[in-house]
Amino acid sequence: MRIGFIQTKPVFGHVEGNVERAVKMIHRCDADLIVLPELFNTGYLFTSREEVRELSETVPKGRTTEALREVAAERNVHIVAGLIERSRRKYYNAAVLVSPDGSVETYRKIHLFHEEKLWFDPGDRPFTVYDIGSCRVGIMICFDWFFPESMRILALKGADVVAHCANLVMPFCQDAMITRCLENRLYAVTANRVGSEKRGGKFCLYTGRSQITGPQANLLYRAGAGEEEIGTAAIDVAAVRDKRLNAHNVLLDDRRIEFYSDLTAPGAGAGDA
Amino acid sequence: MRIGFIQTKPVFGHVEGNVERAVKMIHRCDADLIVLPELFNTGYLFTSREEVRELSETVPKGRTTEALREVAAERNVHIVAGLIERSRRKYYNAAVLVSPDGSVETYRKIHLFHEEKLWFDPGDRPFTVYDIGSCRVGIMICFDWFFPESMRILALKGADVVAHCANLVMPFCQDAMITRCLENRLYAVTANRVGSEKRGGKFCLYTGRSQITGPQANLLYRAGAGEEEIGTAAIDVAAVRDKRLNAHNVLLDDRRIEFYSDLTAPGAGAGDA
Repeated sequence: MRIGFIQTKPVFGHVEGNVERAVKMIHRCDADLIVLPELFNTGYLFTSREEVRELSETVPKGRTTEALREVAAERNVHIVAGLIERSRRKYYNAAVLVSPDGSVETYRKIHLFHEEKLWFDPGDRPFTVYDIGSCRVGIMICFDWFFPESMRILALKGADVVAHCANLVMPFCQDAMITRCLENRLYAVTANRVGSEKRGGKFCLYTGRSQITGPQANLLYRAGAGEEEIGTAAIDVAAVRDKRLNAHNVLLDDRRIEFYSDLTAPGAGAGDA
Repeated sequence: MRIGFIQTKPVFGHVEGNVERAVKMIHRCDADLIVLPELFNTGYLFTSREEVRELSETVPKGRTTEALREVAAERNVHIVAGLIERSRRKYYNAAVLVSPDGSVETYRKIHLFHEEKLWFDPGDRPFTVYDIGSCRVGIMICFDWFFPESMRILALKGADVVAHCANLVMPFCQDAMITRCLENRLYAVTANRVGSEKRGGKFCLYTGRSQITGPQANLLYRAGAGEEEIGTAAIDVAAVRDKRLNAHNVLLDDRRIEFYSDLTAPGAGAGDA
């Protein structure tokens, strides 16, 4: 199978145009699973919860999800894309997984970054892996990468590919994803955006370099930093399901959970400032 | 304070000579905490449990630990170094933390690599952090790096510096340590060995490139791949105790443990071969 990304350059608030351009790129992307950036339809740099509300959509009935369902069916592809999900007066930085049969799953970002804590409600559902037939897909959004727990949980739940919708502004994620995929032996597609936003006295420059990462510390594709771009790569799902590192080590089985209890202990650690 | 490593080239089985050369290098290493490679006194490529037994030592009374205590007191430094610890007919791939006051702590490798599973008993004690006055030190040995759980637990327990004794044969660890230190905001000293071993039809080439890694995806020192070498760097302990990433994110506090229970669930995940 082939996995890919659309690296886009959204215009803040111009949902119709942003979705239209992304759909055109999806038509040109030769992959079975296509990942789009975080908040690809709205832009990122919000300045009020009111703006978030106005640009939010319900799932699956909102216009963005509807447009994605249409192109997914037409092209017979699965799509993972970031948008604001409105649900019972809550607003999530979310990603939808849209299948060609019209079904839709939603992931709500668990680790919110910076001012997202002001604008969005934190994800309230566990990390989940979806079997799409050709592979098993886990979803993360942007800053989730910083926490090794995110991808580890997706690996433990059987993910072959992590669809990683991003609006990266720091330069660290792309190299770190090499470690993430190595330590979990799986593939990841990091779909980042390009361009910049200046709103309400704030400025964000998005770093592009969307990436498809392999399980052996190998890069399958890395995009440029400044332009819209489509990237794809062929992957070997059977290879990542076999977690044997050598004759004696099996990656996830070799975890020694009897010594891991601190990972879930309330109030554990944290250095003092 | 300064942290450092000794990158050595042990001769298999020549404990006296290996320790003597290492002690000479310690005398030339200008650091408060000095890390030596895994099994620095014995070499690595064992071919029987009998060999392991013969080269094992008790702690703290064994000759290697005694020699380290002597130089630690003389130089007023803390030393972390790998050796085989014998205890009640068990043989651990261990590391000792030797203080200038003569006290000794021991870590027993938790994640055994490859044929180590044939020769050594797995570590039977939790990851532990030791306050040495100038900083708080956690210890890992080689393959422990592959599991993000290892360093995460040390960070949760308050480590400022991870002393990482290694005999690396794969090329991945050094770059991965940049991610490990970033995701936990701490320093690490990876002390690797150089040279090769050929025994019982087996061959290991050790990759050197011992490294001191900073908390901001920054390398403080990276050694060469082939020769013995001493490396040191100054560190800022207060900087890594402050886990604030920005005005809204505090690294370890932002972990969402209510969604992490899979990390310690028995029988969780593992792909099928």
